[in-house]
Amino acid sequence: MITKEQVLEALSYVEEPDLKKDLVTLNMIQNIVIEDQKVSFEVVLTTPACPLKDHIEHACRNAIAHFIDKNIAVDVHMTSRVLGKEGNQLLGIKNIILVSSGKGGVGKSTVAANLALSLHAKGAKTGLLDADIYGPSLPIMFGLEGEKPQSVQHEDGTVKIQPIEKFGIKLLSIGFFTDPNQPIPWRGPMATSAIKQLLNDTDWGDLDYLVIDMPPGTGDIHITVAQNYPIAGAVIVTTPQHVALADAIKGMGMFLMDSINIPLLGIVENMAYFTPAELPENKYYIFGKGGGTRLAEEYKIPFLGEIPLLKGISDAGDNGFPIAIDEEDPTTKAFIAIAEKVAQQLSIIQAVR
Amino acid sequence: MITKEQVLEALSYVEEPDLKKDLVTLNMIQNIVIEDQKVSFEVVLTTPACPLKDHIEHACRNAIAHFIDKNIAVDVHMTSRVLGKEGNQLLGIKNIILVSSGKGGVGKSTVAANLALSLHAKGAKTGLLDADIYGPSLPIMFGLEGEKPQSVQHEDGTVKIQPIEKFGIKLLSIGFFTDPNQPIPWRGPMATSAIKQLLNDTDWGDLDYLVIDMPPGTGDIHITVAQNYPIAGAVIVTTPQHVALADAIKGMGMFLMDSINIPLLGIVENMAYFTPAELPENKYYIFGKGGGTRLAEEYKIPFLGEIPLLKGISDAGDNGFPIAIDEEDPTTKAFIAIAEKVAQQLSIIQAVR
Repeated sequence: MITKEQVLEALSYVEEPDLKKDLVTLNMIQNIVIEDQKVSFEVVLTTPACPLKDHIEHACRNAIAHFIDKNIAVDVHMTSRVLGKEGNQLLGIKNIILVSSGKGGVGKSTVAANLALSLHAKGAKTGLLDADIYGPSLPIMFGLEGEKPQSVQHEDGTVKIQPIEKFGIKLLSIGFFTDPNQPIPWRGPMATSAIKQLLNDTDWGDLDYLVIDMPPGTGDIHITVAQNYPIAGAVIVTTPQHVALADAIKGMGMFLMDSINIPLLGIVENMAYFTPAELPENKYYIFGKGGGTRLAEEYKIPFLGEIPLLKGISDAGDNGFPIAIDEEDPTTKAFIAIAEKVAQQLSIIQAVR
Repeated sequence: MITKEQVLEALSYVEEPDLKKDLVTLNMIQNIVIEDQKVSFEVVLTTPACPLKDHIEHACRNAIAHFIDKNIAVDVHMTSRVLGKEGNQLLGIKNIILVSSGKGGVGKSTVAANLALSLHAKGAKTGLLDADIYGPSLPIMFGLEGEKPQSVQHEDGTVKIQPIEKFGIKLLSIGFFTDPNQPIPWRGPMATSAIKQLLNDTDWGDLDYLVIDMPPGTGDIHITVAQNYPIAGAVIVTTPQHVALADAIKGMGMFLMDSINIPLLGIVENMAYFTPAELPENKYYIFGKGGGTRLAEEYKIPFLGEIPLLKGISDAGDNGFPIAIDEEDPTTKAFIAIAEKVAQQLSIIQAVR
């Protein structure tokens, strides 16, 4: 009969590649059960979207076989407990992720929506807040035009907005509270007070990740969100265009300012190229080539992935079905990979802290 | 020997098709000179970018031939004196045109730059102000990165900024005064004070048209510009995407508000379709089809034209040579046609006033 100590000893040879420590030191091994010729245990990852999940599971099986007995049955349960940024307890949200761009129209909302859906697809409790006050696109992208979130009075007397749930994630947008055909001619103070309400006065519940789709630029909303909430990190979206990259640099610079200091999780290059159905091998780099990769190298931050310019992506957003809910779609895989890298970066940052 | 009265009588049968009155009543006929068998006169149009210029010249020749003598030589000088919106005398600018979009990244800056260049190409004195505080693109688009406008002290003691002249137009951008690698984390009041300075404290000189490239949205800059300056009209830029059209509607709604009341000159649909060089007959409607036309019909405002999604347009902007300075380019013709329609709409509005 083997012992728990033997199991822990064996698993202490398995390193978490991102965190550079072994699973036992990281306290990731839980609920070891030994019965006859079978051992079962839980590996508690720092995120359900861990891109190394299969790799770690495989390494655990190998360690048991190598250090204890290669004929023993091994039952590994891969679970997760998402690490959170300190200070978010108030909202019950472990990680607030900003999706930002500098320049508008680069596909920020598409990336934000599909990032949130991909994190959910990997098993994380996820919310999406559309903070693009002057051009909210979440209601159209999720087919929720005309929906009105309910307000519920809690036992302590406070009234909270209930986010709308669709495709498994909690959604909120300023667009739910305004007439889509009416302009929103608001100066900064009105805009920032609206965004604070959407964050503070909403029943977000417990969330592993809240993705915020930021407006373009570096104005009032950015300053307010960055200074008033504990932001876990920011994802920068750009197209390969010189003018878009120039604005992305400005946007990144804001997060890196001493008074703001928000970690950059990486760069997504959107509208990277176009491939007509009739010429599947041709890539037309309409907006230029490789600008996102170069920017990531220059700033020494991860390049999270490139998304081609596809009619399907535009259509999907326009028709209320963001790409990442259709698992058959090849683009979904690109978004899932991006979400895994984002979750990975957050885990590394939180674990080091 | 024919008389001036005969010439005026004949030309009183020529109608200005847009203004629906004859050229004599409109006081457009000037400097009639009669020598032997030759008559010469000037037709003073309301804009050098009048799309009906050739039509009107032809009608004048016909009227002289028909009502006076078909053998007489006719020398017609087509000139113009641009009508201006009242209240702009202070700035010396006859018409301030806003190029706006609601959503960012739809090609607003590309349209603004090429509209200004096309108005200049037709002979108008033109300026371009980049008011996109958080993402100025004029310095890149015109190849003026790193340029610094001079300030000049006038005799009365005031110090004025000198716009930079390139390709025949006067250019100014907040981007000339900031480090391109630094963020501009400004709340509303700082942004609006910057824009007022660029308008008030600049030696614009006499301009027929000042095109302002507005930031996306309907925030502080929009409210300030709309309420403090006599704006002649606004051009709305959109892509055919549902989410872009939704934002365009919001942007249009702002201009139509009672407290703002700025005439909508029409809609430009950008990124209408993509045509690969290998398949010149194929049009890929990546962002959907015909959304701009439908929007124009719905709001009963002119559809000014569609611009295809071309690598050349993106490259041109990135390399400091906007499309409309290359008269060989077929896209230039599309921009010239848009500029003519814009000038036409302004003339109609000013003449009716």
